[in-house]
Amino acid sequence: MKRIGVLTSGGDSPGMNAAIRAVVRKGIFHGLEVAGIYQGYQGLIEGKIETLEARDVGDIIQRGGTKLYSARCEAFKTEEGQLKAIEQMKKHGLEGLVVIGGDGSYQGAMALTKHGFPCVGVPGTIDNDIPGTDYTIGFDTALNTVIEAIDKIRDTATSHERTFIIEVMGRDAGDLALWAGLSGGAETILIPEDDFDLDEIIDRLEKGRKRGKRHSIIIVAEGVMNGNALADLITSKADIETRVSVLGHVQRGGSPTARDRVLGSLFGAHAVEVLLQNIGGRAVGMKNHQVVDYDMTKAFTTKHETDMSLYTLSKELSI
Amino acid sequence: MKRIGVLTSGGDSPGMNAAIRAVVRKGIFHGLEVAGIYQGYQGLIEGKIETLEARDVGDIIQRGGTKLYSARCEAFKTEEGQLKAIEQMKKHGLEGLVVIGGDGSYQGAMALTKHGFPCVGVPGTIDNDIPGTDYTIGFDTALNTVIEAIDKIRDTATSHERTFIIEVMGRDAGDLALWAGLSGGAETILIPEDDFDLDEIIDRLEKGRKRGKRHSIIIVAEGVMNGNALADLITSKADIETRVSVLGHVQRGGSPTARDRVLGSLFGAHAVEVLLQNIGGRAVGMKNHQVVDYDMTKAFTTKHETDMSLYTLSKELSI
Amino acid sequence: MKRIGVLTSGGDSPGMNAAIRAVVRKGIFHGLEVAGIYQGYQGLIEGKIETLEARDVGDIIQRGGTKLYSARCEAFKTEEGQLKAIEQMKKHGLEGLVVIGGDGSYQGAMALTKHGFPCVGVPGTIDNDIPGTDYTIGFDTALNTVIEAIDKIRDTATSHERTFIIEVMGRDAGDLALWAGLSGGAETILIPEDDFDLDEIIDRLEKGRKRGKRHSIIIVAEGVMNGNALADLITSKADIETRVSVLGHVQRGGSPTARDRVLGSLFGAHAVEVLLQNIGGRAVGMKNHQVVDYDMTKAFTTKHETDMSLYTLSKELSI
Amino acid sequence: MKRIGVLTSGGDSPGMNAAIRAVVRKGIFHGLEVAGIYQGYQGLIEGKIETLEARDVGDIIQRGGTKLYSARCEAFKTEEGQLKAIEQMKKHGLEGLVVIGGDGSYQGAMALTKHGFPCVGVPGTIDNDIPGTDYTIGFDTALNTVIEAIDKIRDTATSHERTFIIEVMGRDAGDLALWAGLSGGAETILIPEDDFDLDEIIDRLEKGRKRGKRHSIIIVAEGVMNGNALADLITSKADIETRVSVLGHVQRGGSPTARDRVLGSLFGAHAVEVLLQNIGGRAVGMKNHQVVDYDMTKAFTTKHETDMSLYTLSKELSI
Repeated sequence: MKRIGVLTSGGDSPGMNAAIRAVVRKGIFHGLEVAGIYQGYQGLIEGKIETLEARDVGDIIQRGGTKLYSARCEAFKTEEGQLKAIEQMKKHGLEGLVVIGGDGSYQGAMALTKHGFPCVGVPGTIDNDIPGTDYTIGFDTALNTVIEAIDKIRDTATSHERTFIIEVMGRDAGDLALWAGLSGGAETILIPEDDFDLDEIIDRLEKGRKRGKRHSIIIVAEGVMNGNALADLITSKADIETRVSVLGHVQRGGSPTARDRVLGSLFGAHAVEVLLQNIGGRAVGMKNHQVVDYDMTKAFTTKHETDMSLYTLSKELSI
Repeated sequence: MKRIGVLTSGGDSPGMNAAIRAVVRKGIFHGLEVAGIYQGYQGLIEGKIETLEARDVGDIIQRGGTKLYSARCEAFKTEEGQLKAIEQMKKHGLEGLVVIGGDGSYQGAMALTKHGFPCVGVPGTIDNDIPGTDYTIGFDTALNTVIEAIDKIRDTATSHERTFIIEVMGRDAGDLALWAGLSGGAETILIPEDDFDLDEIIDRLEKGRKRGKRHSIIIVAEGVMNGNALADLITSKADIETRVSVLGHVQRGGSPTARDRVLGSLFGAHAVEVLLQNIGGRAVGMKNHQVVDYDMTKAFTTKHETDMSLYTLSKELSI
Repeated sequence: MKRIGVLTSGGDSPGMNAAIRAVVRKGIFHGLEVAGIYQGYQGLIEGKIETLEARDVGDIIQRGGTKLYSARCEAFKTEEGQLKAIEQMKKHGLEGLVVIGGDGSYQGAMALTKHGFPCVGVPGTIDNDIPGTDYTIGFDTALNTVIEAIDKIRDTATSHERTFIIEVMGRDAGDLALWAGLSGGAETILIPEDDFDLDEIIDRLEKGRKRGKRHSIIIVAEGVMNGNALADLITSKADIETRVSVLGHVQRGGSPTARDRVLGSLFGAHAVEVLLQNIGGRAVGMKNHQVVDYDMTKAFTTKHETDMSLYTLSKELSI
Repeated sequence: MKRIGVLTSGGDSPGMNAAIRAVVRKGIFHGLEVAGIYQGYQGLIEGKIETLEARDVGDIIQRGGTKLYSARCEAFKTEEGQLKAIEQMKKHGLEGLVVIGGDGSYQGAMALTKHGFPCVGVPGTIDNDIPGTDYTIGFDTALNTVIEAIDKIRDTATSHERTFIIEVMGRDAGDLALWAGLSGGAETILIPEDDFDLDEIIDRLEKGRKRGKRHSIIIVAEGVMNGNALADLITSKADIETRVSVLGHVQRGGSPTARDRVLGSLFGAHAVEVLLQNIGGRAVGMKNHQVVDYDMTKAFTTKHETDMSLYTLSKELSI
């Protein structure tokens, strides 16, 4: 293998730039040429491909977003689109591809691999919802963004003795809500992995108030319901006034934390090593404190396991 | 005067603790006793009053929210409530009161003053909307919270070539939107002080895209309309996809910036000096780089003047 | 077991408050009474012991430092001191003790355990240097503090084309230097675990300059040598001007990151569960992504293993 | 005037990029061409001059450092160097120059103006020490960096009951020390503008300890003496153990605060307006809450006035 490509796809996440930098420099370290593909699969089809030198990825490790941009691409979901992409890669002399993104992006990478073009996946998403890896790039940064917001809201909640509902990202996975709730000292955490009991929530709020709590914070993952709907539900059943805060898009941005930079670096470098063995269809991950690679199909055919022990612990500690 | 009180009222704002600390310690410096009243006017009526020593306000200058808590109080809007408050203050030996809050809180302070109990107002609100002072305590912190959010959202906006609408606080005053928009490099800023022209907004967005801008950011003050309504308006007129972020309650919290701590310290100290002269009905402020005091009624009978030169400048620079 | 104690000892680290909160609330959850001991072993000898309720540890999870304070204590290193401590604990009805601190603190805990008083250790130190656990409480926060500093210094380094030497904490362990160097994009990292080659350092600096690098950053762990000494060494051998920044005590403080809050919560809770089984002499840790406990003597009789793969990776990526 | 230049000189400061952006875009708004000169006066002599379009200064308002780089330049202090610079500017068609920097940089700008080439100065330095303006670009950011460090150090100081000496920048001006000390709640502040009394410092430390203060923080401007020297002085006279933290170069970096971005924008835009009137030898500033311009020589022939009322207030409040 002499020349490989790298792209970012799907929602951007902090630390993607660290992964790009690692792919480029680890590649150069092993004597490869590395090309960046701009705007994900869309750019791949359109041939937006440029060679990246070591200097081109300097001074990006600390930046949020992705230097290579990202985009949704309907065309790439068809075989026609995929063949066009392969054509472009051949034209640009690419022999392997590192795809940084979520499980949707992995499906595209697997399709290319099946067409004979080896791809390796690197998990980049703030949702931490990719099966086969304990952590994804961007989760730690998003988590810290959320707890900074909780800390700020708590100032106001305490000053005014209020109940706040904070809606965080997480359509299918409650990791962000769970970790944020535990580390933010939330009274109640609602995640897609578990049904919630409205009476119990209200009971906790009322008991907390009686015990002299000056504020209550409820974290709800968007996959459960939106924050305003939850507020309405609570108000319909009890005389409790709540305020709602929807954290939204800020959760995707920001300079990556140290951990996401390290994770991005480890994953990007390992992806190159896998490609160098001419192996495609693998996904990189962190499992039990080790960098690993595994069959990429696992990432979109199995279910992500949320660490439910944190859920139990959070309930025990938020008395 | 031998013993004075201090309370915080209305929405909390970062830097209120610095002002409380200054009132207490400046008072002690001048040989006064200082009592803290908890939960604003509500606590005043209920007699939640405690003497504060210098140590009691140690280690709070860096904290958001207000150590004395705040609350809304309907009862205090009646003369009956006001007389009860004066009764409590006499009972606790108070001879003067520093009220830290917004213009609504000033009206209560003026009522007490008219009943013969001297009050001095200190402007604490993130909205920067109190006539007679160039800055209020909390504005600078809220502003920096907003631009951190803009910076994060820009990561994502750039990565995905998107248009973002960011709704910030400001019912009547556009200061927060204006300063944030200028310092966040927003393309368009919508404030209550000026009508907006939907066609012009769309025109700017489309021109920007043609010139190769990778992202567009629109800041809208809540007093103009909510972010989602604006998004619908734009979509109804042009083929432009937007994302909306409502920053909400995080804007009130957080450790105060240096400026808000200095402002709180200067204002709290000056309020004590005014009270020491047995003068009530005054509000403290910063005017043309000087700490001043002025007739408190000005704060709720005149209109706050937003610095519209920033508005013009922002338009010129966001090309 | 009906009543247990908790103390913090040695250098403070962010996340200790999360661990204290977890010990107290997990204890209460299991029907125990929990007492806080102020100022570490010194306070234990002096009987500075107070029962903590669930509310007493509210609103501390986000605070740096330790609510229970810490102190060095020479007296406790003698058997006499230890017996006095046991006497105090008996007097206050304590039957078990959670010690949050570094390996020095563990030695004291082991001594008490040998005297028949069961102690469990929780690893709290920013150095990440306790054998038997992959992570200690405070490491992640300190690491992020360091990379924020590096990011700031890089602004100046880039603007002026300068070489910076940044000295970070770490007497015996290079973890902080290593992780910070990798995630900060440092050209060169000096850690106690490896000898350094001055000629190679100078060679890298000169090559970087020739390749057009606008700045160079060298991270040195204090255990290798101090930053100024390194600057002198470099200047004595080559015509390279360097600036030195000694990060110092800021590395210990600050609001803990999400990870340190989660770690503190998990560790504190697990320590209570171990004590409940009447087992002493155990240390809590995170090993291969699992919360574990192990023989506490391991922590001060074996050597901490730094992950040297990060060291190699950092060299490959900092071209 | 049809084409002007802009450069940054001297130590970099956060917000310089906002000023560069404002010069470029305000210039374009008025129909000018604007060229950036790289590496200050050195680059001017060497002709490192490039036209900047509106897009070239996009996405820089939030970045620390200076996009145009900076450098010291001995050659420019000679008339020969200055004439070379003018020659280059003529060659590149420049008719006016905006110089962003400190008072040293202003002297160069004045020399060019005297040679018939109109220059306008914009105050960019974290020291806030330029006569004629109440604030300089970068001061607010540096100040907030310092108080974040103080807040972190206080965590440790409180946990261990320690006295900390924190050395901050400021060779001739105590502004940074003064504002940081007041907003950080420091017990003692040492600035170049006032002699200090060692006995009084020690007295305050000892009294504070007796009153139960858990920590003491002393801020010393580098212009008074270095932190370690002060520690030695104190130890030589009293039994007080101190820790020293030298904040150093981090004070120059970081993403600018909102205020520094607004200030940079206002100053850069006003500089263009002054140049457009073909006036040279003026410096831009903020005086009594108004953007002004004034004779540039004032900036290096008169003395900066530090607001000593903050000094007095700080002493009164740090009891």
